Amino acid sequence: MATDKKLEDLFLDTLKDIYYEEKQIVKALPKMAKAAQDPKLKSGFEKHRAETEGHIERLEQVFELIGVTPKGKTCDAILGILEEGKSIMEEFKDAIALDAGLIAAGQAVEHYEMARYGALRTWATQLGRADAAKLFEATLIEERATDQALTKLAEAGGDNAKAA
Amino acid sequence: MATDKKLEDLFLDTLKDIYYEEKQIVKALPKMAKAAQDPKLKSGFEKHRAETEGHIERLEQVFELIGVTPKGKTCDAILGILEEGKSIMEEFKDAIALDAGLIAAGQAVEHYEMARYGALRTWATQLGRADAAKLFEATLIEERATDQALTKLAEAGGDNAKAA
Repeated sequence: MATDKKLEDLFLDTLKDIYYEEKQIVKALPKMAKAAQDPKLKSGFEKHRAETEGHIERLEQVFELIGVTPKGKTCDAILGILEEGKSIMEEFKDAIALDAGLIAAGQAVEHYEMARYGALRTWATQLGRADAAKLFEATLIEERATDQALTKLAEAGGDNAKAA
Repeated sequence: MATDKKLEDLFLDTLKDIYYEEKQIVKALPKMAKAAQDPKLKSGFEKHRAETEGHIERLEQVFELIGVTPKGKTCDAILGILEEGKSIMEEFKDAIALDAGLIAAGQAVEHYEMARYGALRTWATQLGRADAAKLFEATLIEERATDQALTKLAEAGGDNAKAA
């Protein structure tokens, strides 16, 4: 039994999870940008790819702060979420509703990350690591902004997607 | 090529996805409630299980509104997210940080649902189905409230989880 597992362990496990996730996301975003029809959505995904590289660097800073070598841990959740994005790209290839599907896939990723970074920030604070909490907060703000930008594009894009 | 796929198709696909998801979640929540140590977290999961039954009913109302027989569609994303919750229950069994892990797992589920219901609400509005949009909005409000309640429990629970 793992009765001695503490918040430090959960923190490190989740840090490795999100490190793996961000590395998957940075590979998926160029494909989503390439598939997108609306130039605004395309550049939105490209911008977020660049931001995601910054998120990976921040995670590496956290690893350094706690004296652990950066290492990812396979995460079923993000694989499932990205798999759905891939299905959208296949099933809605060249379809009028492709962008709406890509936006929704992107928002699923952002929301998952918001949940993860929110937990990590809370735990970092509780573990007395305000320095790490600050880095998570910075990324959390960018994930939220990306989600809001995608919502705007979703709300603007309806007429195209429903047109015959 | 699926060039004729429209927003209606994306809407129906996603409706089937979330119907499958809610049915998985309603099965997972009692296990999470049973595993939780803090009575407040336990009752929080139980309360949300009851709410989730209401979400399933609302989805069945939407199926009825659009004249389609309710049917789920396997969704890799929720399976991955719930798989992570299961890992937490196994790896942190009887551990002091179990509740913190369960809260985070619950928040990952809530965030995923918020992304899905947000997209469905936007699309319903764009498709002229204000009746369906209203049902999605009602559920979205409950998912957000659950997420906020979990954040409160996470912020309150730190001292227990980090104690030796």
